[in-house]
Amino acid sequence: MHPWIAQRTQYVDSSGIRKVFDLAAKLANPINLSIGQPDFAVPDAVKQAAIQAINDDQNGYSLTQGIPALRERLQADVDKQYGHDNRRVLVTSGTSGALVLALMAMVDPDDEVICFDPYFVMYPALTGMVGGKVVKVDTYPDFHVDLAKVEAAITPRTKLILFNSPANPTGVLATEDEVRGLAELAAKHNIAIVSDEIYRRFCYSDELVSPASFNDQAIVVDGFSKTYGVTGWRLGFVHGPAEIIDKMTMLQQYTYVCAPHPLQWSMLAALDVDMQPYVDSYRHRRDLLLDGLRSAGYEVSQPDGAFYVFPKAPWGTGSEFVAEAIARELLIIPGNIFSARDTHFRISYAASEETVKRGIDVLTDLAKR
Amino acid sequence: MHPWIAQRTQYVDSSGIRKVFDLAAKLANPINLSIGQPDFAVPDAVKQAAIQAINDDQNGYSLTQGIPALRERLQADVDKQYGHDNRRVLVTSGTSGALVLALMAMVDPDDEVICFDPYFVMYPALTGMVGGKVVKVDTYPDFHVDLAKVEAAITPRTKLILFNSPANPTGVLATEDEVRGLAELAAKHNIAIVSDEIYRRFCYSDELVSPASFNDQAIVVDGFSKTYGVTGWRLGFVHGPAEIIDKMTMLQQYTYVCAPHPLQWSMLAALDVDMQPYVDSYRHRRDLLLDGLRSAGYEVSQPDGAFYVFPKAPWGTGSEFVAEAIARELLIIPGNIFSARDTHFRISYAASEETVKRGIDVLTDLAKR
Repeated sequence: MHPWIAQRTQYVDSSGIRKVFDLAAKLANPINLSIGQPDFAVPDAVKQAAIQAINDDQNGYSLTQGIPALRERLQADVDKQYGHDNRRVLVTSGTSGALVLALMAMVDPDDEVICFDPYFVMYPALTGMVGGKVVKVDTYPDFHVDLAKVEAAITPRTKLILFNSPANPTGVLATEDEVRGLAELAAKHNIAIVSDEIYRRFCYSDELVSPASFNDQAIVVDGFSKTYGVTGWRLGFVHGPAEIIDKMTMLQQYTYVCAPHPLQWSMLAALDVDMQPYVDSYRHRRDLLLDGLRSAGYEVSQPDGAFYVFPKAPWGTGSEFVAEAIARELLIIPGNIFSARDTHFRISYAASEETVKRGIDVLTDLAKR
Repeated sequence: MHPWIAQRTQYVDSSGIRKVFDLAAKLANPINLSIGQPDFAVPDAVKQAAIQAINDDQNGYSLTQGIPALRERLQADVDKQYGHDNRRVLVTSGTSGALVLALMAMVDPDDEVICFDPYFVMYPALTGMVGGKVVKVDTYPDFHVDLAKVEAAITPRTKLILFNSPANPTGVLATEDEVRGLAELAAKHNIAIVSDEIYRRFCYSDELVSPASFNDQAIVVDGFSKTYGVTGWRLGFVHGPAEIIDKMTMLQQYTYVCAPHPLQWSMLAALDVDMQPYVDSYRHRRDLLLDGLRSAGYEVSQPDGAFYVFPKAPWGTGSEFVAEAIARELLIIPGNIFSARDTHFRISYAASEETVKRGIDVLTDLAKR
């Protein structure tokens, strides 16, 4: 290793998932069910608002906390929903930006961060990068939260719980009882709960209940990227106790500076776009995929949100099964990317119906092996 | 302090500069010479290229290292200029993004980072945030580098030198001898030199000579923000030894994810826009301001780049002088924001000629006190 490289870089070795994408690049017409972003075009009203802002010379720095018009609109929505005295909104450079700032603002070296296995790949990486220790709470086989396990994992060094529902990679939506229990547990032990709600608008049965409904100190990470198909625009937001958000704002001033200014204006327009038809079309694909998987005999926990399912490999390890799928030009992600276990695999249905159907055919065939 | 707040947040208290901006907000018609961004509108070709990309659905994630077309163009330019075998380009979310990643990639806790006083405010803050120790090398009164002082500051813990020319806040352009000496010193001691060249295109006498001309391991931070008036677009780039850039790329994947995708396309167009007329107009304002200051008896080191001058306060501390200026509705920044000393103040001439002239009038009057 180059002598100048810092120790913290050990947490960001992304070779696992890159291997899949490198393989993908070599295939002529892959069945790509590996992508973590919507496949629809950005609604025209959203595009036009961004274009308008560029033409109107909204191209210099914005306030680091976000343009006032957007922040006030989000703040009003948040106040209406939760009614907390001290809850403050910050516009961030995507959900990732909010997560980075939250961890930087709260996690000291050797602090412990609880996350649920399987987890979004960034959680352990970012925790390690800021010097924290990841404590994984297993959620197999149904990917729901066992509160007794969480309480058993809490120590005097526990600083925060990183929670994600609907979840990547499982698509599982936590029940109201789980969320309430977790929120109350955090309050009881005076630890932070950071709720990553990036997939909030992709719920197919009940609406998401947020930990902030039960804990006025909960920190909620939210975003526009997945909802409006603008993952490349780097726009998200976060809300939580004012003292925490203020520190995150100062950290943002020195790191992200501000979310891309003209694109912030488009989010005001986006908030008035009805995304339900998009959500309905994803529900339809979810149903299609789930029926196909269950008919083929796969073991799948009910995925009521996001755009992922996380079945158990019918034979071999998750990695072995995925290698065989990729040999048949079906791109999916092995579960060990998201987990200490290598038993499952992630399918994304953020793809055309035709692609989903082609994927089901290959998976049906593979299950018979 | 809230019990959840991490220690590293102590490095990002931005109360000093915010005080000036808060005061500014209360004034009806301030003479604002405090702004660190160009006052011209983004060239139309640049705007149109961004708009085209939005309409062409370039709105999802880009590759974390940047869109290939832009990266290849920048790589070709860099290869042509320096001819190093192992030099690699990464597109970043602004110059700040590049600086954050460089420090994260290289600075371990208690490593020492040399920077020159006066310094850009981010340098000590970011160094502290990653656990490093800032070692300040004084450059008063002429703001040029004294190589003997730099060599004396190097210890076995020194990891890198943060260098900035043309400099914020002084506007001083380092000579070729200084740059060569510094680059050779870094090579001799096997420490990194990170050269922040964000103001490279705003040089009014000689062109900037980069440390990369003398040291093939130099890491060069560059940007589009200041050059094209797109500070709110969050676009920059960095080039350096492949091993370092690769680690920065992996860190970017987990933090910034990618620079704003559609806006990256506009930078391809920007590279073909002739910015010389803009630079000439800034030179003209620099001359105007410098003549005014010298006529009024101010002590000013020759500012041959960027859009700042950093005169010595003719009486009192820098802060006392600036308080009096602000009382007369002239917004400038006290030197102690950028320095361990409180003897100077920063004027930005990224403002209309009329505003610069109004500023000179007030400063001429203040010098007589």
